[in-house]
Amino acid sequence: MFEFDLLANQGNARAGLFHTPHGDLPTPVFAPVGTQATVKTLTPDQLDKLGASLVLANTYHLYLRPGDELVRDMGGLHEFMRWPHPLLTDSGGYQVFSLAETRKIDDDGVIFKSHIDGSTHHFTPERSIEIQENLGADIIMAFDECSDPNDHSYSHVAMERTHRWAERSLRAHKQRDQALFGIIQGGVDPVLRTTSAQFISSLPFPGIAIGGLSVGETKSEMHTMLDVVIQSLPAEKPRYLMGVGTPEDLVDGIARGVDIFDCVLPTRLARHNAAFSSEGRLNLMNAVYARDPRPIDDNCQCYTCQTFTRAYLRHLIVAKELLAGTLLSIHNLHALIQLVTEIRTSILDGTFEGKIPAWLTSWQGNAERVKTRHEPELRSDS
Amino acid sequence: MFEFDLLANQGNARAGLFHTPHGDLPTPVFAPVGTQATVKTLTPDQLDKLGASLVLANTYHLYLRPGDELVRDMGGLHEFMRWPHPLLTDSGGYQVFSLAETRKIDDDGVIFKSHIDGSTHHFTPERSIEIQENLGADIIMAFDECSDPNDHSYSHVAMERTHRWAERSLRAHKQRDQALFGIIQGGVDPVLRTTSAQFISSLPFPGIAIGGLSVGETKSEMHTMLDVVIQSLPAEKPRYLMGVGTPEDLVDGIARGVDIFDCVLPTRLARHNAAFSSEGRLNLMNAVYARDPRPIDDNCQCYTCQTFTRAYLRHLIVAKELLAGTLLSIHNLHALIQLVTEIRTSILDGTFEGKIPAWLTSWQGNAERVKTRHEPELRSDS
Repeated sequence: MFEFDLLANQGNARAGLFHTPHGDLPTPVFAPVGTQATVKTLTPDQLDKLGASLVLANTYHLYLRPGDELVRDMGGLHEFMRWPHPLLTDSGGYQVFSLAETRKIDDDGVIFKSHIDGSTHHFTPERSIEIQENLGADIIMAFDECSDPNDHSYSHVAMERTHRWAERSLRAHKQRDQALFGIIQGGVDPVLRTTSAQFISSLPFPGIAIGGLSVGETKSEMHTMLDVVIQSLPAEKPRYLMGVGTPEDLVDGIARGVDIFDCVLPTRLARHNAAFSSEGRLNLMNAVYARDPRPIDDNCQCYTCQTFTRAYLRHLIVAKELLAGTLLSIHNLHALIQLVTEIRTSILDGTFEGKIPAWLTSWQGNAERVKTRHEPELRSDS
Repeated sequence: MFEFDLLANQGNARAGLFHTPHGDLPTPVFAPVGTQATVKTLTPDQLDKLGASLVLANTYHLYLRPGDELVRDMGGLHEFMRWPHPLLTDSGGYQVFSLAETRKIDDDGVIFKSHIDGSTHHFTPERSIEIQENLGADIIMAFDECSDPNDHSYSHVAMERTHRWAERSLRAHKQRDQALFGIIQGGVDPVLRTTSAQFISSLPFPGIAIGGLSVGETKSEMHTMLDVVIQSLPAEKPRYLMGVGTPEDLVDGIARGVDIFDCVLPTRLARHNAAFSSEGRLNLMNAVYARDPRPIDDNCQCYTCQTFTRAYLRHLIVAKELLAGTLLSIHNLHALIQLVTEIRTSILDGTFEGKIPAWLTSWQGNAERVKTRHEPELRSDS
C-alpha cells in the first residue's frame, strides 16, 4: 500500500502511479475541492464522468459540520459522500488559522472559535489525526502552522513548531490504510525551506506536502521556493503542492517536480460565471455571448461543451439559474484535469518540455495568481 | 403527426400514445416544469435518466428573458435547452394575469408590465401564438383568461373571452409541426364548464386543456368540474389538466380521464428540503435524519435513493450545499413520473381501478392540495 511508482521523468517533471486503498492514482493529478463532502453543485457521478480521480475534503469544516464521528459512524467519508476513488483531507490547520474567529496558538495546539456558531474548540496534532482517522480519507495531512511569508521571524517559529507537530502527528497516526503526509513550511526563506524539506524528508512519511505557498508571496518567490525544496526531496515519495493553483501554476509546478495539486479555483470561478478557455478566461455574463452559438471551448470534450452554447449558458446566468454553476463547474474542472492528463501523457512520451511554452501561452489569460496577501478561502470552497 | 392512439381504458382512465415531432409520448404523462428553459438544478441528461418525457416551459418568462426571437435564432427551444424529447409551452396568459405588476385586459388582449423591469408589453392571442411559434415547442396553448373560480360573473366573462381568443389563436397558428391545444374555462360552474368543454371541443384543436382548476377551488369542486368536463370531451383527443398536481391529484385525475399533467411541486418541494416517500412527505432538514443510513425511500430506484443516505442529504441541507436541491429534485420528479408510469401499466393490464385505494393511501401524506385562494407561482418554477 502507498507505493509510489515513478514511470517517467522529463527534467524534474515526473509521471507516476500512487497506490491507495481506493485505487491507483496516476500523477501528476489535480484534485477538485469538496470542502463539505461535496464538490459544489456536482454529483459524484458527474465528477467521475468529467475525469476526477482524487478529491480533497476539509477537515475543519467536516469536524464542525456534520462532525467527524458522525461521518465515521456513517461508514467514513467515502461511503458518506459516495466517492469511490481516492480522497485526501487536510489537517484543518490552515482553516483554523484563517477562518476561525479567534484563536490562540501555543506549542500544544490551537484553541479557536467556530466561524459557524462561535463555539470553542481545541486542535492539536493528535486531535487533527484523530479527526482525520474518523473521516477516513486515503491521504491525510500532518498538523502544521502556515506563516505569513513576509514575516521572516514568524516563519522561523512556525516552521519549527510544524516540525515538532509533524513528529507528534506521526506518533498519533494509527490507521495503516491512510497515508500521512508531512508538510514543509519556511515562508520564502531558502535556508528555512531547505531545512524544512530535509527535516520532513527524514521522517517516515509516505508523501511530502509543500505548504505555505500561494498565500501571498510573488510568483517568482513561489518558483524559487519550489526549486529549493524539490532539490532536498527524495525521488521516491509523491510531492503535493497544497492549494495550488491556476492552470499556469500546474504547468510550472509539474515542470518543477510536483505530483499532486488541489485548488478551489475551477469551482469558485464557475460560481462567478467564469470559464477557462483556450481564448483566455470568459465571463459568460457578458452580453457579447447572448447569441453566441459556440460552446465555451471548441476543443473541449466535457459534457457542457459537447451539449450547450454560450448563449444558453449566458441565459442561465442572467436568469439566475443554478444550473449555470453546475455546467461551468463541469467545464472548469474538466479543463484542468484534462490539462494535467495531457501533461502526464507528454511526460510519458518524452514531449513535455517542448510543449511547456505553448501550454503557458494558451493558459496565460485564464487566471492570474492570487495577488492579495491572504486569500484563506481559496483553501476551502465555501 | 399528432395522432393520439388510445391503447386501453379502465373506467374513464386511458392509456395512450401521442405522436409528436420529438417522439411518441406515452400517456398518462407528468411533465416537469422548466420555466426558464431549465428544470431547476438539473441537466437534461439527469432529467432524461430519471424518466422525464414531456417538459413544460413558460412562454411569459422566455418572452421576457432571453426573448423568443433569440430562442428561435438559436434553433428553437429544443436546441437551446438541449431537450430532445417533446416540449410544451403555455400561452403566457396565466403568468400575465398572476405575475405581471399591472395589467389591463380587454377583448383585444392584455397590456402588462414585466415583473423583472417594469417595462410595458402587450399580449394578444396572435402575439402569444407568434411567441410560441418562435419558441417551437411540440405542444402549444391557446391564449386564455383564467378567472377566480369564486367569482361567477367574472368566470362567465372570462370563459366567453377565452372562446373568442381560442378562435383567434387557431387562426393565428401557422406552424404545422406544433399541436395547438384549446383551453376550457368556466370556473366552478357546471353549466359554464359544459358550455366551454363543448365549444372548445367543436374547434379543430388536436388536444384539449382544462384550465382554471387548482387555482383556489376545493378538491371536491375540482373533481366535480373534471367529471363534468370530461363527459363533454371527445375520446380521440388528449386531455391536459394544467398546473396539477400533487400525487393524489394525479391518481384522481387519471381516474377521471386526464392524460397530461404538469406541476412545479416536485422541484419546488426539493428546494424546500422536502421529499416524497411512501412513509409520507419527509422534511430532510429534520434532526431525526442526522444519522439515518436509509435512502429517502427504500423502494425508489432513482439515482438519489440508489446512492445517498438521508444522513448525507440532511448534511447537505444543513451545510446549505446546492447539491441537496439537485438530489431531491431527481428523487421527487422520479417519484411522480414513476407513479404515473405504474398507473399507465396498470391501465394497460386492467388492474388500475383495484389499485386506486392503495395509491391514494400511500400518497395521502405527501402533499396537500393548495388551500390558498391563489398560488400563481405554482404555474411557473421561479
